[in-house]
Amino acid sequence: MPVHLPVPLAANLYPVPGVRIGVAEAGIRKANRKDLTVVLVDEGASVSGVFTQNRFCAAPVQVCREHLALNRGIRALLINTGNANAGTGADGLARARSGCAALARQLGLAPEQVLPFSTGVIMEPLPAERIEAGLPMALADAGADNWLRAAEGIMTTDTVPKAFSRRVQIAGATVTITGISKGAGMIRPNMATMLGFMATDACVAQSVMHELALELAEASFNRVTVDGDTSTNDSFVVIATNQAAHAPITSLASESGRVLKAAMQEIAQKLAQAIVRDGEGATKFIAVRVDGGNTADECRKVAYAIAHSPLVKTAFFASDPNLGRILAAVGYAGIDDLDQSRIELFLDDVHVATRGGRNPGYREEDGQRVMKQSEISIRVDLGRGSASQTVWTCDLSHEYVSINADYRS
Amino acid sequence: MPVHLPVPLAANLYPVPGVRIGVAEAGIRKANRKDLTVVLVDEGASVSGVFTQNRFCAAPVQVCREHLALNRGIRALLINTGNANAGTGADGLARARSGCAALARQLGLAPEQVLPFSTGVIMEPLPAERIEAGLPMALADAGADNWLRAAEGIMTTDTVPKAFSRRVQIAGATVTITGISKGAGMIRPNMATMLGFMATDACVAQSVMHELALELAEASFNRVTVDGDTSTNDSFVVIATNQAAHAPITSLASESGRVLKAAMQEIAQKLAQAIVRDGEGATKFIAVRVDGGNTADECRKVAYAIAHSPLVKTAFFASDPNLGRILAAVGYAGIDDLDQSRIELFLDDVHVATRGGRNPGYREEDGQRVMKQSEISIRVDLGRGSASQTVWTCDLSHEYVSINADYRS
Repeated sequence: MPVHLPVPLAANLYPVPGVRIGVAEAGIRKANRKDLTVVLVDEGASVSGVFTQNRFCAAPVQVCREHLALNRGIRALLINTGNANAGTGADGLARARSGCAALARQLGLAPEQVLPFSTGVIMEPLPAERIEAGLPMALADAGADNWLRAAEGIMTTDTVPKAFSRRVQIAGATVTITGISKGAGMIRPNMATMLGFMATDACVAQSVMHELALELAEASFNRVTVDGDTSTNDSFVVIATNQAAHAPITSLASESGRVLKAAMQEIAQKLAQAIVRDGEGATKFIAVRVDGGNTADECRKVAYAIAHSPLVKTAFFASDPNLGRILAAVGYAGIDDLDQSRIELFLDDVHVATRGGRNPGYREEDGQRVMKQSEISIRVDLGRGSASQTVWTCDLSHEYVSINADYRS
Repeated sequence: MPVHLPVPLAANLYPVPGVRIGVAEAGIRKANRKDLTVVLVDEGASVSGVFTQNRFCAAPVQVCREHLALNRGIRALLINTGNANAGTGADGLARARSGCAALARQLGLAPEQVLPFSTGVIMEPLPAERIEAGLPMALADAGADNWLRAAEGIMTTDTVPKAFSRRVQIAGATVTITGISKGAGMIRPNMATMLGFMATDACVAQSVMHELALELAEASFNRVTVDGDTSTNDSFVVIATNQAAHAPITSLASESGRVLKAAMQEIAQKLAQAIVRDGEGATKFIAVRVDGGNTADECRKVAYAIAHSPLVKTAFFASDPNLGRILAAVGYAGIDDLDQSRIELFLDDVHVATRGGRNPGYREEDGQRVMKQSEISIRVDLGRGSASQTVWTCDLSHEYVSINADYRS
């Protein structure tokens, strides 16, 4: 049973001036399923993206990077489910390019103005002809109010669409931010992609877009982990249509920049956390916070060691306060000069371990009580410095094995 | 269902001149269970050990390191199950020392001549008084033919004792090598230890013992992984009693050194692989070999990325040839300048992927055939150089989750 997050209602999703979305059933892998989404962006938008660090990145990720680097003005995103176009070699690159070219032809654009995204089976040829055949339907569907349909259109094994929206005042103007995402990790055998798309009508200079995308990803999608497998297709794209009535943001440190970034970060974190909450097999949502590090990097290493440990994750599934496993993960996280006698461990408000050993006041029933909750926070203090980092993860259940061991069907 | 390895019979285990072993039921955690083992070593032996890299190492590991560094001539090992004495702070260190002192008193030795080992529950006080009370029974039991009893005495959730033995000719003398191990990973909630002990009557200068222990561990215990969790207590100790009738080995590169190392390595690999085969929940034994790297280190990184991936491991459990997951793991293993277009992937004799994409001649039924075997080899060629490394692992099954999610009992 996934931990269900509140399903966002279409009524809560604001359209973003300058963005229209169309969704179609193109039969890419299965019939009668929304599997093709186009996002159309008015001329003049600022666009940037952050992509998987996996060196075995999928063909569409390679094409996205090329097209963004050319900087000819991105006008459309082309997203398919059912096939990841990853592990497909030179042929996969050609198919990713042909999809961009087909959409560009219909819109009177250059292929370099289209960004492609794919999610689904790895190592099978992308059915480019079905994508091309589905484009007229998707374009005919295009509208400003289709964000929920888009969130559904990019789903693979997600059980709920993930979409969040908010409005914020920037320099006297009302600005809209809307984003959608689909799941990573705890994914079915064939699916291996986290996708996130956010758009705002705020005015943001192209020169700061990449910094904005990086910082948003860093505080959101880069903080969630389900099984530690980094997918070949992970992509997060940020679009600013520059249509709101305020002076362009040319620095994220400016007041307008800070307000916008904070609001976008809130949406990005909701989208990222929604992926963990909807992780198939997940029964618990766990925040892992590491304080007292010398650097943010070492805090993150420790947080991920805990969040990735199968022993820790199965203990949380079982509500078993077998918390020595957390200390063991801290120990192998890769801090060479770690002094275990300075480690403190908390589970929510319960002080479990002190100076690297069991806290004399710790009672197992207190640990047990917290472990039974569906939302749990782990806090480790390394006692070395003042850096701090948080990552979000879920437990490891029987359902995870079932889902990932199911033969592809 | 674990993959059962052939249970070694006592008849196959040779005693090692200079080593006697005694086993007792000390009731450390449960009654009527062999849980206390002493290994007595004649004066004049060369001894070295390799220990967990976990910075949160257990108290006995810290004491072992201290006592080996003092180099006063190790004469006894003291091994308990039922309690790991890890995550126990300063009190744990005192209890580990008191166990050594108690055994030393009974043998007329200095405490620094005893090495302690513990495996079992983390973060609970070691019942040092029960260990002390059990020592006379263990000493009364001491004999040269007790290797199988010792292999049983150090078991926690292992389903079979792990012990191997062989004889080899060194410079005209017959030399015996016997070793025992107990499981790591796929371990019950409370258990978190890989232990390995090997003894030979060969003559090895103390000056080369540490190099010998390191090289043996590197080629065996350091190559196996079950769930990627590095325990707080992992210990591997090598004893050479120096009683065989040949000239002492003062260099591992000498002919005698090479013969001994090769024979000991064979036993060490059997002991290490036995741990994986007996991993609870394991249904398949998987060798991951990475060729064509620039360095052994990068080959090992890639091999471990594959061996640790929950997505790869669940696919093997399901006999699902969803082999793109292996390519994805190669991609995130941490080689920054990896060229995916040079990657080749084989499953046993089946050529699955070439130049980073699906091999045109690959048929899924061939992959399926191999996946159904209980022993499988994965081979990746990185196409970068001539380095090569192999690690051994198992699949990830429902049983793993059940075992590790069981409430401690």
